[in-house]
Amino acid sequence: MPRPFLTRSEENSSVGAIKNARHPFYEHCEETLERIKQQGRYRTFTPLARQAERFPLYEEYVANLPEGREVIVWSTNDYLGMGVVPEVQEAAIAAIREHGAGAGGTRNIAGTSPLHNQLEAELAALHGKEAGLLFISGYVSNQASLQTILMSMPGWICFSDRLNHASMIAGIKGARGSQTVIFEHNDLKDLEEKLAAAPAEAPKLIAFESVYSMDGDMADIGAICALARKYNALTYLDEVHAVGLYGQEGGGVSQRDGVADQVDIIEGTLAKGFGVHGGYITASAEIVDFLRSTASGFIFTTALPPSVVGAALTSVRKVRAENWRRESLFERVHTMRQRLRAAGVPFTMTPSHIVPIPIGDAERCKRICRRLLVEFGHYATPINYPTVPEGTERLRLTPGPFHTDEMMDDMVRALALLLREEGVIPEPATQTIEKVA
Amino acid sequence: MPRPFLTRSEENSSVGAIKNARHPFYEHCEETLERIKQQGRYRTFTPLARQAERFPLYEEYVANLPEGREVIVWSTNDYLGMGVVPEVQEAAIAAIREHGAGAGGTRNIAGTSPLHNQLEAELAALHGKEAGLLFISGYVSNQASLQTILMSMPGWICFSDRLNHASMIAGIKGARGSQTVIFEHNDLKDLEEKLAAAPAEAPKLIAFESVYSMDGDMADIGAICALARKYNALTYLDEVHAVGLYGQEGGGVSQRDGVADQVDIIEGTLAKGFGVHGGYITASAEIVDFLRSTASGFIFTTALPPSVVGAALTSVRKVRAENWRRESLFERVHTMRQRLRAAGVPFTMTPSHIVPIPIGDAERCKRICRRLLVEFGHYATPINYPTVPEGTERLRLTPGPFHTDEMMDDMVRALALLLREEGVIPEPATQTIEKVA
Repeated sequence: MPRPFLTRSEENSSVGAIKNARHPFYEHCEETLERIKQQGRYRTFTPLARQAERFPLYEEYVANLPEGREVIVWSTNDYLGMGVVPEVQEAAIAAIREHGAGAGGTRNIAGTSPLHNQLEAELAALHGKEAGLLFISGYVSNQASLQTILMSMPGWICFSDRLNHASMIAGIKGARGSQTVIFEHNDLKDLEEKLAAAPAEAPKLIAFESVYSMDGDMADIGAICALARKYNALTYLDEVHAVGLYGQEGGGVSQRDGVADQVDIIEGTLAKGFGVHGGYITASAEIVDFLRSTASGFIFTTALPPSVVGAALTSVRKVRAENWRRESLFERVHTMRQRLRAAGVPFTMTPSHIVPIPIGDAERCKRICRRLLVEFGHYATPINYPTVPEGTERLRLTPGPFHTDEMMDDMVRALALLLREEGVIPEPATQTIEKVA
Repeated sequence: MPRPFLTRSEENSSVGAIKNARHPFYEHCEETLERIKQQGRYRTFTPLARQAERFPLYEEYVANLPEGREVIVWSTNDYLGMGVVPEVQEAAIAAIREHGAGAGGTRNIAGTSPLHNQLEAELAALHGKEAGLLFISGYVSNQASLQTILMSMPGWICFSDRLNHASMIAGIKGARGSQTVIFEHNDLKDLEEKLAAAPAEAPKLIAFESVYSMDGDMADIGAICALARKYNALTYLDEVHAVGLYGQEGGGVSQRDGVADQVDIIEGTLAKGFGVHGGYITASAEIVDFLRSTASGFIFTTALPPSVVGAALTSVRKVRAENWRRESLFERVHTMRQRLRAAGVPFTMTPSHIVPIPIGDAERCKRICRRLLVEFGHYATPINYPTVPEGTERLRLTPGPFHTDEMMDDMVRALALLLREEGVIPEPATQTIEKVA
């Protein structure tokens, strides 16, 4: 017999009268948030409005102030700045004018425009594969593809690099009935031992990334593919932090290394090197058609808006053709490292474009970020748990073609000062900050 | 010891020399696709380019023809046509000009613009909740929220309506360690029996929809919430096919019925009634902050582009204020039903805006759709398995404010003719199609 109607707040205000008025989940939320706060890893999102014409300048909005404050951002994943290239913006605008603001349906329910098909063909060509398939994000492309593959036949064993991205882990864990073997990060010996120990007849898949975005290190794709051939494993490669940036056309590390044709499935994103939004896989025609026809996360979701697809198509074509954008990126990364080194600011040397500044403590990491923003007008995201293991908190810099020498000087000076004041690096005995900068 | 480098095509061409050259997954894909084709449920996406200024007109692109062919679409989920409202388009364009084509990062990595915060506040207000949280799609909002909640405490039991959407099922199934109890569709007696049979101390959640999109029927939200109070279950309501359309401000069926404050979590989409892209939840501040802080599918993904968020913000504000859009929708649905009835075309009467035309056979359903498109220039998506159970295949019409009387006459005439020719309804003995129409 239903009780008379009460709003939740009324129930809460008369707890004595009504048993079980508040679901225990509310208390669980409060306790979890309290614990996260005590551990110093509660996240507040800084509201930053990107200024397309002045990128990497953003405006930071502070409560009760109508005007934004200018900030230089060092943490964008739009590595080449393609999202603010006028032709890319104009392609998005043209698609909005012609087709409207959204797709209006799933791919099957009137949501497939000719732009979707053209972009899928372009991405397949980029990676030298027979076919491509768009997903609404890189996260979903990994989760949906891996989960669908690993539930397709009985007995799948997935060999997963220990540092794989959360989206790959979500797909692998979600594949009930399959078995997961985690191999040590980029450790070919460990991978081979584990492959050799598995039953020969079990279907196997090796899931790994080309550029690991938080440490900036890279996999030896060719060597992993050689092991895959030896033990007859399917290869699934996440090139999310590499597409657009590596290889003569931006096809990723697999293109740079000349091994793309050895990888069964190459996954990528349109939201980082290509500066727009969405994710994709490329593979053989039958694998792509299989995922198109069976992956729940692909089928039951509204298609990407034509504006996103149109902008991405223009961006991919430009990035493929314009190698100077990649050259400019790596020149800037090189220059930034030189200046950090000259100023005595420690950074992790990586073979990629990513420049991590190790801090090692969540609270300190957040405080340095906050001071960098408030006192110096520079923004670098504090990276803490669960994105990286506790104790390895860091600032993660992604210098790009849009960062000028002057911006670098200013940022390096600020960093050197703050890291000394916060005790991350010792005070210099014989030189002043000014001399170093 | 790695073998010498071979491309996959070389391996395939010398199968005798190399054992296990082709992974068994390739054959599995081919066999699965062959089976899907034999069952008549292989899907081909019709490339349709929405014409914003002439919606619901689209252009259909056929291979080798440079020019598109005009088609009237009856299957859009942009129910109110908000995606082609000039102010919504202009809001998207303004955001692209100001902020670029993409967000450039996750919400935590410089991807939160002031627009994101404004839209979340607007959606919370729409549903009378303390807070809102954007996800990149309705699918992900369901999957990530339900999975995260159902793994938050030990012993969760999820009571899930049998016809819940694939995205809810993905989240519920993905929650390892939780228990799922499926109750018969919209069956309050079955739900109560199952709630009563569960251990009193176990944390419980009831997951259901307001409008079930394939059948167009509705849940009794108030009655389900009463059961939830009686058995102390959390309520999770998917209003994806209702937001924008029901309630005095488009807050969904829960707003129309005056029971929104009895629902713990209301989930919705920006891609249907609001005509843009993306999904969201609204709930109490602590639940939203908990999901913001812990849901993998929220944390590890690029934020929605500012253009999508800006367009959605304008759309939600207009839809809240402009009740005439809802009145116009239901007038059009009513008119369409009258004309179908007059022409003897069977349809399922529903309490919602959805007009299903039962066909009951996958091949016939696809053929009628094909003929409707090719011979008459009307497009209605064939809905078949896995979207609906086999044997219940249908055309699903969603008439909207943008469908004129003339379009309806033409569509009804074509449907009546085709359904008779295809044997879905008997040939009339005493009247001609012309008279009926």
